[in-house]
Amino acid sequence: MTIIERAKAAKRASIRLAALDSATKDKALEAIAIRLEERKSEIIAANDKDYARSIEEKLDGPLLKRLRFDEEKLSGVIDGIRSLKKLADPVGQTKLATQLDNGLDLYRVSCPIGVIGIIFESRPDALVQISTLCLKSGNSVLLKGGSEAANTNRILADIIREASVEAGLPEGWIQLIETRSDVNEMFKLSDDIDLLIPRGSNAFVKYIMDNSNIPVLGHADGVCHIYLHEDADETKIEPIIVDAKTQYVAACNTVETLLVNESAAKRFLPIVKAALEAKQVELVGCEKTRAIIDIGEATEEDWSTEYVDYKLSIKVVSGLDEAIDHINTYGSSHTDAIITEDEEVARKFMALVDSANVFWNCSTRFSDGFRYGFGAEVGISTSKIHARGPVGLDGLMIYKYKLIGHGQTVNDFNSGKLTYKHTALGQNCPL
Amino acid sequence: MTIIERAKAAKRASIRLAALDSATKDKALEAIAIRLEERKSEIIAANDKDYARSIEEKLDGPLLKRLRFDEEKLSGVIDGIRSLKKLADPVGQTKLATQLDNGLDLYRVSCPIGVIGIIFESRPDALVQISTLCLKSGNSVLLKGGSEAANTNRILADIIREASVEAGLPEGWIQLIETRSDVNEMFKLSDDIDLLIPRGSNAFVKYIMDNSNIPVLGHADGVCHIYLHEDADETKIEPIIVDAKTQYVAACNTVETLLVNESAAKRFLPIVKAALEAKQVELVGCEKTRAIIDIGEATEEDWSTEYVDYKLSIKVVSGLDEAIDHINTYGSSHTDAIITEDEEVARKFMALVDSANVFWNCSTRFSDGFRYGFGAEVGISTSKIHARGPVGLDGLMIYKYKLIGHGQTVNDFNSGKLTYKHTALGQNCPL
Repeated sequence: MTIIERAKAAKRASIRLAALDSATKDKALEAIAIRLEERKSEIIAANDKDYARSIEEKLDGPLLKRLRFDEEKLSGVIDGIRSLKKLADPVGQTKLATQLDNGLDLYRVSCPIGVIGIIFESRPDALVQISTLCLKSGNSVLLKGGSEAANTNRILADIIREASVEAGLPEGWIQLIETRSDVNEMFKLSDDIDLLIPRGSNAFVKYIMDNSNIPVLGHADGVCHIYLHEDADETKIEPIIVDAKTQYVAACNTVETLLVNESAAKRFLPIVKAALEAKQVELVGCEKTRAIIDIGEATEEDWSTEYVDYKLSIKVVSGLDEAIDHINTYGSSHTDAIITEDEEVARKFMALVDSANVFWNCSTRFSDGFRYGFGAEVGISTSKIHARGPVGLDGLMIYKYKLIGHGQTVNDFNSGKLTYKHTALGQNCPL
Repeated sequence: MTIIERAKAAKRASIRLAALDSATKDKALEAIAIRLEERKSEIIAANDKDYARSIEEKLDGPLLKRLRFDEEKLSGVIDGIRSLKKLADPVGQTKLATQLDNGLDLYRVSCPIGVIGIIFESRPDALVQISTLCLKSGNSVLLKGGSEAANTNRILADIIREASVEAGLPEGWIQLIETRSDVNEMFKLSDDIDLLIPRGSNAFVKYIMDNSNIPVLGHADGVCHIYLHEDADETKIEPIIVDAKTQYVAACNTVETLLVNESAAKRFLPIVKAALEAKQVELVGCEKTRAIIDIGEATEEDWSTEYVDYKLSIKVVSGLDEAIDHINTYGSSHTDAIITEDEEVARKFMALVDSANVFWNCSTRFSDGFRYGFGAEVGISTSKIHARGPVGLDGLMIYKYKLIGHGQTVNDFNSGKLTYKHTALGQNCPL
């Protein structure tokens, strides 16, 4: 099948998938979990092949690590599927119910978006997570993973398709895209694909936005900040900063720039330096910072750099307003935190910092779908519409309006024969 | 100021506007209403100029009618502003509250999107409606109206800016774009403009999607359907079809294609023909239709045409499944209705028709923000993400996550010292 035919097949399947009952979807999830367990040795053998070839091709260490799909990772994704099964069906929830008039009832009801195109990095576990999230939310999915993981992705997609279709899902709901030319074709199929979710670098997300008119839910860089206000509790500074910088440096919710209130800089900066240098973090700072502690020089470029490494830039600011301005200018609207004991200061920070996640007195590392209690995560969105921050099943949903009448016309109301009531209905949509 | 400087000014203003209290915004709305009333004669004089020039330039009748901004239309928009003032502030509403652990509380709080770019047709009342909707929802706005209405738009934008800034709104929140070259520049400013809302034809919306990587909330054509199931109540058929087709032919929620169940076609089609021909509606139909009633021939093109006129296409279908397939193939996912007495048939129709609005036994013309009780309307979206169907203030909102802690780190949880509780909090975000 060509990519166009496959997108059309996914679209057709999405119509039936949207109307599928929760029990069939959960049965399919269980069937996938069982089949993955049963075919464990084949999956691991396929991954061994990818791994061996990638070593030959001298793939980077971190990429090799992400490519590895061993027994432990497989059991992790199987656990994930069983957790997902337990979550409430996000389809068919009544979000608004209004009586327009007697016997004319309006309902806003959640429904799947339709067909989702997902382009993800080399981690094969992402394929399982994302496709089962799409299944639970009633969306068809076109998947493009990293070519390093081609054998692993192929067997995983085959297993998911077979097990789910046997359990009653419509044929065509899941499609694996394997070539780059198919991906570029896919970007043009705005009639059949409703949303693209790229998981990768900022440049990658921007490339897709420039090359497709399908809506994009961007998952881009995190240039995250912590601002130390003058009244920050010294006992909170060290644990929060050490956690936010070093708990897992490769994450997008890791802090990259520390902003310090000028009037407390002499007190705070030596604490920060001692704590982070003990963790082998390289520090660079502005001139005012370097007048207090002996560290490297930060350039203009540092303020907008996501290091994803043991490195932190530090800037002394005149106060809350400059901190907010700096974050809104150089940040990536991802996750930013303030350490202060003053509720009014925290309130202003959280209102004026234009980021998906704004934190008071805790680590930026909490910015995550699992930690937020969403049970499953598509990724972390830096978009300003549809879904922002950690995206769970909700982010794969939209709604439709259902209006149930008994022969009413607009003219009945315009002529004055009937009058709009617009009263809230305390019930779910009956169909 | 260049368009780039103006977009940056709007972005700066949006940060302050997002944190503005409800009272100041409502004071600004009242000030705008008063100032529009005070400067009535100047506004009407400006519109007279636009009108006279458009007559000289031989503008079409319907466009001339929409351009007219007289005392009645002015008093209509002033009433609209006072209704908008009464609506609850959509900013700062707690949409989700979860205790991650003792003293670590997560809130999802509604906030404005930021900067909205709106391109609208010649109606000057749209300028007032849209900019006051943006004000109420805390968004900055860049407006581009039709050049026919240049004088009217200029004085309206001036009045709104002056009155609102005097009442405490940040300078720069509203910007009028007057030239086509500025609009094309605007499409490139994805750093400062968060969402484009075009109100116009399908082709126009598609042009913008192809020429900008700013997200677009499309307001496109409505190719709406009514399907008459075999058990349709004959007393409901005539009023609903007449209303849906003729109550206001220029609207996007007007029916364009009627689908009739084959087994009842002989009964229903003569009723339809008599009712619509009495209203001077031209009918075209498929072969099976024309074997029953004497009307013109429908071509393949008819099935996807929005007539916006006294014309209707009719197709005989074998049953519910073919009706659903036809709508999903040729429709524009706008508004589609079924007439049936069977709840299970209605349920299937409403689940499988992939449209923003699916109706049972009532006119498609109800698909409208005011009729739905939203109090104000941005337009009707045919997008599949963010906001779908009639869009009220909600469609101009997004959310941010606020996490309030007491020094917690992710390592506290990973090490087992603390455990995620993820219990629902029955309270609004305290800040």
